[in-house]
Amino acid sequence: MVALKLVNRPNKRKQTADQVSELTTNRLSVYLRCLNEVDASGVKSISSQALADRFQLNAAQIRKDLAYFGEFGVRGVGYYVNDLRQHLRQILGVDKHLRIAIVGAGNLGLALADYPGFKQEGFEIAALFDAASDKIGQESRGGVPIHDIRDLKRIVRRERLDIAVIAVPAAHGQPVVEQVVAAGIKAILNFSPGALKVPPGVKLKNVDLTVSLESLSFYLAQGES
Amino acid sequence: MVALKLVNRPNKRKQTADQVSELTTNRLSVYLRCLNEVDASGVKSISSQALADRFQLNAAQIRKDLAYFGEFGVRGVGYYVNDLRQHLRQILGVDKHLRIAIVGAGNLGLALADYPGFKQEGFEIAALFDAASDKIGQESRGGVPIHDIRDLKRIVRRERLDIAVIAVPAAHGQPVVEQVVAAGIKAILNFSPGALKVPPGVKLKNVDLTVSLESLSFYLAQGES
Repeated sequence: MVALKLVNRPNKRKQTADQVSELTTNRLSVYLRCLNEVDASGVKSISSQALADRFQLNAAQIRKDLAYFGEFGVRGVGYYVNDLRQHLRQILGVDKHLRIAIVGAGNLGLALADYPGFKQEGFEIAALFDAASDKIGQESRGGVPIHDIRDLKRIVRRERLDIAVIAVPAAHGQPVVEQVVAAGIKAILNFSPGALKVPPGVKLKNVDLTVSLESLSFYLAQGES
Repeated sequence: MVALKLVNRPNKRKQTADQVSELTTNRLSVYLRCLNEVDASGVKSISSQALADRFQLNAAQIRKDLAYFGEFGVRGVGYYVNDLRQHLRQILGVDKHLRIAIVGAGNLGLALADYPGFKQEGFEIAALFDAASDKIGQESRGGVPIHDIRDLKRIVRRERLDIAVIAVPAAHGQPVVEQVVAAGIKAILNFSPGALKVPPGVKLKNVDLTVSLESLSFYLAQGES
């Protein structure tokens, strides 16, 4: 469990990860991103209302989400930006520099390998994996090496990789996930189309890019009425 | 407004797009994806409970989400799979074969151009745009042509493009969005890091891939307790 220095009243720290909805953790991620920007602009403390106004968020929701993990606000001051950033980084587990493997060195895998947002948040893309002999031994533009997928287990151990990102064609999704699980990975982010199965104890998160487009098409369709 | 053939009691059709939360439209997208799979397996009708069981969804939530748009269920039968698919496609506006422009023909833009899920849901990636002279005139592996970004306005009109996907480096995000808006696009899906500004009447949806990774790191961090 994360350590919370500023806790000064009973909170719900004992809740397990499964009880905190993914929507909440997604919002915490957004708050962290906003606080990074506030910090970069030199602001030392900010109220939930000012934060909400600046980033079009909901102030009551911010206070509620943060209160779940402890009492971070200071009366008359708001939040100390840098303190709250550190707490959010601990809560989200990104203070640990998690190491990521990307399976699939096609356009998507290569794009993700060099995605600048990951590094900024403490994720390190440590390795790419592919089965194509012309890719193995090469590296991404940003310098991430491409390994043979057959070496997955060995390299996951050697490089202490925590999370696998699946960026392979749909037909290869399930076999690749099984290799990843067999290699000891407990958290998987899947970009492959189609539903993948993982055993209990392994967390799978699907990123379906079509869902994002459909919320836009919904907007366009309703706008025509 | 979408036509709902099966409506047989008052519903909330008059609600505007803004009042239906993005979370709801995201769930409708997921239901559509599940129904496609059910349909492909030859099942003609399914109850909300069976649908929930098969895809680890919440039956009450399914009924609530669908009831918002009309009465689609039939007592003793459940939902007719193909009818409900058509209705969801109408509600989500994907029955219209929306045409997409992708700005940025780097790894991410090229990956998105050939992403198989889009075509399946009626989106057509009609054009890529870039400023690099060695890319202009080429095409993606799947055959999407790469145009000069300077021709954006002309090609948006000629090709009747509805949605723009932004896949350029962070520094180019805001100028590119402004070009896209000036070209008459009303719905934008942004993969660039950093907050972009759009004028009223233009819908911007940000896809922050870091948020997905952080919900996994949260899971790993809490699991250690």
